[in-house]
Amino acid sequence: MTDNDTNTELKRVASSITTGRIEALTDGVFAIVMTILVFDIHVPTQDVVKQLGLLLALEQLGGNLLGYVITFVIIGVLWVGHHNQFFYIRRADRTLLWINIVFYMIVALLPFSAGVFSRYAQDRVAIAVYDVNLILAELLLFAHWAYATRDSHLLNHSIEPHVRSIVNRRILTPPLFYLAAVLLAFISVDLSIAINILMPIVWAFPSRIDHIFHRG
Amino acid sequence: MTDNDTNTELKRVASSITTGRIEALTDGVFAIVMTILVFDIHVPTQDVVKQLGLLLALEQLGGNLLGYVITFVIIGVLWVGHHNQFFYIRRADRTLLWINIVFYMIVALLPFSAGVFSRYAQDRVAIAVYDVNLILAELLLFAHWAYATRDSHLLNHSIEPHVRSIVNRRILTPPLFYLAAVLLAFISVDLSIAINILMPIVWAFPSRIDHIFHRG
Amino acid sequence: MTDNDTNTELKRVASSITTGRIEALTDGVFAIVMTILVFDIHVPTQDVVKQLGLLLALEQLGGNLLGYVITFVIIGVLWVGHHNQFFYIRRADRTLLWINIVFYMIVALLPFSAGVFSRYAQDRVAIAVYDVNLILAELLLFAHWAYATRDSHLLNHSIEPHVRSIVNRRILTPPLFYLAAVLLAFISVDLSIAINILMPIVWAFPSRIDHIFHRG
Amino acid sequence: MTDNDTNTELKRVASSITTGRIEALTDGVFAIVMTILVFDIHVPTQDVVKQLGLLLALEQLGGNLLGYVITFVIIGVLWVGHHNQFFYIRRADRTLLWINIVFYMIVALLPFSAGVFSRYAQDRVAIAVYDVNLILAELLLFAHWAYATRDSHLLNHSIEPHVRSIVNRRILTPPLFYLAAVLLAFISVDLSIAINILMPIVWAFPSRIDHIFHRG
Repeated sequence: MTDNDTNTELKRVASSITTGRIEALTDGVFAIVMTILVFDIHVPTQDVVKQLGLLLALEQLGGNLLGYVITFVIIGVLWVGHHNQFFYIRRADRTLLWINIVFYMIVALLPFSAGVFSRYAQDRVAIAVYDVNLILAELLLFAHWAYATRDSHLLNHSIEPHVRSIVNRRILTPPLFYLAAVLLAFISVDLSIAINILMPIVWAFPSRIDHIFHRG
Repeated sequence: MTDNDTNTELKRVASSITTGRIEALTDGVFAIVMTILVFDIHVPTQDVVKQLGLLLALEQLGGNLLGYVITFVIIGVLWVGHHNQFFYIRRADRTLLWINIVFYMIVALLPFSAGVFSRYAQDRVAIAVYDVNLILAELLLFAHWAYATRDSHLLNHSIEPHVRSIVNRRILTPPLFYLAAVLLAFISVDLSIAINILMPIVWAFPSRIDHIFHRG
Repeated sequence: MTDNDTNTELKRVASSITTGRIEALTDGVFAIVMTILVFDIHVPTQDVVKQLGLLLALEQLGGNLLGYVITFVIIGVLWVGHHNQFFYIRRADRTLLWINIVFYMIVALLPFSAGVFSRYAQDRVAIAVYDVNLILAELLLFAHWAYATRDSHLLNHSIEPHVRSIVNRRILTPPLFYLAAVLLAFISVDLSIAINILMPIVWAFPSRIDHIFHRG
Repeated sequence: MTDNDTNTELKRVASSITTGRIEALTDGVFAIVMTILVFDIHVPTQDVVKQLGLLLALEQLGGNLLGYVITFVIIGVLWVGHHNQFFYIRRADRTLLWINIVFYMIVALLPFSAGVFSRYAQDRVAIAVYDVNLILAELLLFAHWAYATRDSHLLNHSIEPHVRSIVNRRILTPPLFYLAAVLLAFISVDLSIAINILMPIVWAFPSRIDHIFHRG
């Protein structure tokens, strides 16, 4: 048996990495990350409830609830973004597989970062931890897109350059805002928090792509 | 390249949001939410067991077990309801995707609300937290149904108005009972708890739809 | 529109409850229940390690590790059993759906029962909790099988009575042993624990069905 | 009905164990194991933060973060390896099913072993726990491969001996390094830790197989 035959054989393996299982693993990771965010909202202990009453004890969880909602929406945005890329991506190679695994690694850190942010939002270090985590997630999403669309062998059908640049802009804009939030925290922590609260709302809302989607 | 071409291209993306991955994410979120309910039933500590014996220590978990069963059944009802809608829904657009993500966000809060309810059921605030969570979940399920059936472009086949109104009634009746339970808690907490215990039983039982199903 | 039309319409919904999503939810629930069993094996605290050294501290987890292995194998047995039933079951109706959800409810309690068993195995109450949980899981699995095979409308193809009685015996034998273990605990706790340790080994091993499988 | 008929009937059941559900359960288990690794990185308590400040408190988590990254990558490697085997494996029998379940049992222990390693890395017992867990996972992966390729009835198409031996080497090399790391810990714990840090990097990187993949 020649090396060429091995080549052919292994190429067949390589081409077998269809996107189906990547999508399944992605859905699994995202479902769990979304769901364990709730662990950051602890049921008040009986000591606290005796002291404050249940209503006040729950009011103290307001920050955690806000952090939960913000992070849940952002994870939703990341999932939708990742999901949409697979309209174009038909096949995966080992590099794309590993970009995905590193992406999961970053996304799976979000329950931790969100916990730091919820508990210590007044500390600019907490904002930096949370926002750097989100920036990394977006950059991985960009790497995923950039690698997959680099040439056509992983794609379903060719991508119009116009579409490509809209998607690029949509992926790369949020990291800039989060970077601004990290820097702004040195001037005003409250302003930085405000950006963090507004981002998921703006980000989830229909962009130009979505307006076209809605007419679709 | 004209804007029209981009339009066409992006419409193809939009139409690619098939319901398959939404259903996969839904199953993932529901499986996890169901499974982590058990975290509310703690294995008794050795201190408690030394003091009371294991049998009595376990008896004290009766309330948590009841909360577990009730909430598990309700989550089952929500899953079945969501699942059945996808008999009619064939395609998803970004709005439907986001209705789903917000639905997950509400459902993923249930382990917390159920924990508050199990531990502080005698406090009407706890009942309100739990029931408002359930009301929101049902309203999202209704929004999902109302949006998807609003016009036919997301549907598999047309829905008879008759069927539509049966489904509407089935989705919107429970929130009314839960609202009643919240209000009744001001008169009698026990009555309100009783409604919360009865609801999942009644709700899971065959309604008129189910009788037809059973003959099917 | 007559009631008959509604009937026809709703029958179409009913028949849409394919087994695919039930299997997906089952896989999700089982994957999570398997995976969270590890939470019962705590990394030793620094206090314990300082006092005993890491090696002795880990040795103390022997019981938890044994409980982990036993329960993991049993959950595997339940999953394989449930999975095999879907070779015959092609469709689901609402009753079968609810048998599944109650089955998940029982299975999702296993991490709790296993925790009670691991920590308090010398107490016959702990054995009873664990074994009753397993008995209930098996009975639900039997109800699932009995209901689905009751008549042919949910089945893929007809089942030979011979096969049916082999499967019945295979499902109903373990509960008898677990019942014996609960009762034996009143005479000798150690004997009862021994049965609990042996059961998953015996149960996972090739029965008559499996011998045939192996020749297959 | 003769025994032969039962045979035929049960063979049909056996052949129904398609790999689809095994892959689904695998993806579920891996997604959860990956995601719960983050539970080892605790949000610093307010006491610690008051004493050290948030920045220093987070710096103390450096070891846990490193453990998280290493273990995440290794789990990724195991998942890719398992996934690739299913290019060749088309069918499953009960033995293969049980090899998978034992594989899950070993993999699901990794969050515990990684926790022991992260917290007590300076203790050679901790290194042994972690590395033995990884060795067992690899050996199970090898057993999976060896059993499935033993004869052709579970395979999609025949495997060139050349390919087979490349895969064997790729699976069996890492356990040797981990064994070396366990033994080296008696001479130098730091050297052993270094191997543990380097392994996932080397292991995830393109081997000879991957170079061929990349040209593919």
